[in-house]
Amino acid sequence: MGSLIPGTLPHPLPVPRVRDLGIERPAVEPPASLAHLVATGPGDRAAHAMGKAYRDVVRALRGRPGRIPDLVARPTDEREVADLLDWAGERQVAVVPYGGGSSVSGGVEYRGDAHRAVLSLDLTAMGRVLEVDTAGRAARIQAGTLGPSLEDQLRPHGLTLRHFPQSFEFSTLGGWLATRAGGHYATGRTHIDDFVQSLRVVTPAGTSASWRLPASGAGPSPDRLFLGSEGALGVITEAWVRLQPRPSHKASASLAFTDFQAALDAVRALAQSDLSPANCRLLDAGEAALAGASHDGSAVLVLGFESADGPVDARLAQAVGLARSHGGRSGASGEAGGGATGGAGADAAVSAWRSAFLRMPYLRDGLARMGAVAETFETAATWDRIPGLIAAVRREVGEAALKGSGHPATVNCRLTHVYPDGAAPYFTVLAAGRPGDEVAFWDDLKAVASDVLHRHRATITHHHAVGRDHRPGYERQRPDPFALALRAAKDALDPRGILNPGVLIG
Amino acid sequence: MGSLIPGTLPHPLPVPRVRDLGIERPAVEPPASLAHLVATGPGDRAAHAMGKAYRDVVRALRGRPGRIPDLVARPTDEREVADLLDWAGERQVAVVPYGGGSSVSGGVEYRGDAHRAVLSLDLTAMGRVLEVDTAGRAARIQAGTLGPSLEDQLRPHGLTLRHFPQSFEFSTLGGWLATRAGGHYATGRTHIDDFVQSLRVVTPAGTSASWRLPASGAGPSPDRLFLGSEGALGVITEAWVRLQPRPSHKASASLAFTDFQAALDAVRALAQSDLSPANCRLLDAGEAALAGASHDGSAVLVLGFESADGPVDARLAQAVGLARSHGGRSGASGEAGGGATGGAGADAAVSAWRSAFLRMPYLRDGLARMGAVAETFETAATWDRIPGLIAAVRREVGEAALKGSGHPATVNCRLTHVYPDGAAPYFTVLAAGRPGDEVAFWDDLKAVASDVLHRHRATITHHHAVGRDHRPGYERQRPDPFALALRAAKDALDPRGILNPGVLIG
Repeated sequence: MGSLIPGTLPHPLPVPRVRDLGIERPAVEPPASLAHLVATGPGDRAAHAMGKAYRDVVRALRGRPGRIPDLVARPTDEREVADLLDWAGERQVAVVPYGGGSSVSGGVEYRGDAHRAVLSLDLTAMGRVLEVDTAGRAARIQAGTLGPSLEDQLRPHGLTLRHFPQSFEFSTLGGWLATRAGGHYATGRTHIDDFVQSLRVVTPAGTSASWRLPASGAGPSPDRLFLGSEGALGVITEAWVRLQPRPSHKASASLAFTDFQAALDAVRALAQSDLSPANCRLLDAGEAALAGASHDGSAVLVLGFESADGPVDARLAQAVGLARSHGGRSGASGEAGGGATGGAGADAAVSAWRSAFLRMPYLRDGLARMGAVAETFETAATWDRIPGLIAAVRREVGEAALKGSGHPATVNCRLTHVYPDGAAPYFTVLAAGRPGDEVAFWDDLKAVASDVLHRHRATITHHHAVGRDHRPGYERQRPDPFALALRAAKDALDPRGILNPGVLIG
Repeated sequence: MGSLIPGTLPHPLPVPRVRDLGIERPAVEPPASLAHLVATGPGDRAAHAMGKAYRDVVRALRGRPGRIPDLVARPTDEREVADLLDWAGERQVAVVPYGGGSSVSGGVEYRGDAHRAVLSLDLTAMGRVLEVDTAGRAARIQAGTLGPSLEDQLRPHGLTLRHFPQSFEFSTLGGWLATRAGGHYATGRTHIDDFVQSLRVVTPAGTSASWRLPASGAGPSPDRLFLGSEGALGVITEAWVRLQPRPSHKASASLAFTDFQAALDAVRALAQSDLSPANCRLLDAGEAALAGASHDGSAVLVLGFESADGPVDARLAQAVGLARSHGGRSGASGEAGGGATGGAGADAAVSAWRSAFLRMPYLRDGLARMGAVAETFETAATWDRIPGLIAAVRREVGEAALKGSGHPATVNCRLTHVYPDGAAPYFTVLAAGRPGDEVAFWDDLKAVASDVLHRHRATITHHHAVGRDHRPGYERQRPDPFALALRAAKDALDPRGILNPGVLIG
């Protein structure tokens, strides 16, 4: 892959060792009553210093991680979470909630020096499915449950949360809820927000427990205030979530488009139909080439259908017909009767894309070691904005990368989620780096990208969260009165300002 | 209908005249610059004093309306709304936002005496569809647009908001948004919340304008804080909302069930299927008899399907098959090709139910004039709670009505909305009144009902809003930390406490 990007290093950067980081002793001692929950070893602390963005990988490689937390606590129940918050509040210790640590927007690190110490609150010791209501298709699940474990615990009940963000293996239910994660599926039930029946959230002002309800019109939704609060308002400890039966029927197909605008029109028609594809991913020519899904400059539309109720061939056929009526050229397609997405019968482009999708995060770290910029960002906008937005991101980020590194860059786009009223474009940037100056260079590119998003009224994030990295874009987007309300809510729930300081709110 | 309810009056109560209400002069004069927007006539003021609940009708009939607003303002644009709020803030005048006035929970009246005067802010002079994005299926619509006018303005574009609460004719987009209205449809897109792309909200602290987005993960949703805020946080002035094509294919059918639990199981199976019926209303035996949909003690399930994409007969047939497998007995069914719901071909039970549904609010006022209690309330709960909840409401409200009036009462139930994880039961109470003491009697019954809901962890309201009447139940349901956050948000946005004082927050 190195040959894809000009200007990379002759040898990969070495992976630094923890002992080279010069980690100092913790600035505070944990209280005796909670000491059994708290780790103070340098390895544990270093592993909780940052998320998994490109800029985090580079900072790690360069031996310049963010502020290392003083303590890593692993509470095993809600009482311990509350006790840790009480202690932290008394000592003016910042608390950074930590699930799988997969943040790509600076969500799990501490910046600044307004606090006496930093506690990383690792929820993964709270990793159980506590109750399953099979008839009502719901489960009560602890926030620290990692994706694979969550699905393993639901499988015996024949049910699934069916929420598969790209970070699935390394992220938790609590992280998904706190960041309003987007799942893998292109339409329908895919956002974690829509799966929530109720939440329990420990705040310094008490524990919030909403009722388990299928719907309610009683005032503004309490759950929706905590969804997306990124640990700034409280620590989500558990949730009742809606489940689905495991799909028994799947089918997929791909179509190639010479004209990208025609492909956009096809996708819009599909999103506005009753068909509700599970997958409806449009890869532009560059993305399709990178994934090995096309080699002739075509854009590729990957379609997939799933159902637990019955065969989906008819829906797939209708969808393919609709896409063909917009100029799509069919590849092979087929029904996959088994359990795995894109199993036997799926066409080559579908398989190639899926494999590239799963491989990409690993590949990125390797590219970073070679000195290349390899990062993604995403957004969402209404359909009227989409063509201009995509063109402007490609042009302006590409120009900035060329100007900054002296080498041409690749800026690809795919649509990951589609809606009747818009879509979520996901951009991949592959560029030569500026050795030794990688973080500043990426921050420059990201600032250019954020500027384009702002001008096109495209959200600063569709599912990567705000964290600390997206704060400038978020502040331009967020209505001022809502900022006042959010700040007031924060002050009411976290009067000492210990909860994940710096995310969402300045 | 009088014979249905024992203990009614021999003659209907007369409808009082405005001049008998003894309305005093307004406590404040409007400022000269805004005087052209403000009505001070007793008729206008009396018409804005209350909503349309049974207790409102009775208070009107008894000549004891709530506090009459001093002024009725009808702004024509957002600037005028802001100017009115500024003026009201300076003078300590309470502002009660008013759309169609169809509140059934005390949402549009003023109680108490903490303010110098009361201004009813009638938004209906802001009643236009301002922009339509046909390709993106969305429109920018002013908050004061009444249901029929909204649909009339969209019809030339071949689009519909497809949001039909029972109050459709007498309620506005802004009211729907401020109260999180539920539409007519049983599954899928029916809650107004899900139609919102963006909102504009005038608050005393400035105007909140969210971006028009199909989805976003940037912090807690700003729109979701204002949805359901019932005028306590700001005045919604306009919204971009998602539209749908007008359905071209419809079909409906009904099934009778001897066993109510079997009917509940059938409805749950339908709600958990992929079929997504537009209508999936289960009427218990009493409700079915009252609607003329059954005469043999059966519960009746009314099913309807709609699509703009193609025929729905196959889905209807599947749904009927599923219901039959749970013991449902089919009536006639048929495809209605035309535009009207339940057109030619719909079966007799469907037509009877639809007619009763449309007639009921009018009938209720007549019953109230005869001294009878005729009121409804609704809730939602998870499936595990539904059978016990419905039985307890029937029993306990029935007993309280008998005890309070000396006559047996009718307490019927239907499910109006169904979800994979629960349902929304809607109760109708028909009872002898306590002449001259109607309001207190109803309040007693409602307190009993609210108690049952609380014990069964069923929401105090699924789509009737909190207003002032549901405050006690709401306060028991709302998580305490969320109450703190909401109060803080209110203080930040409305520091002088002029916005709809008494709804949601004490």
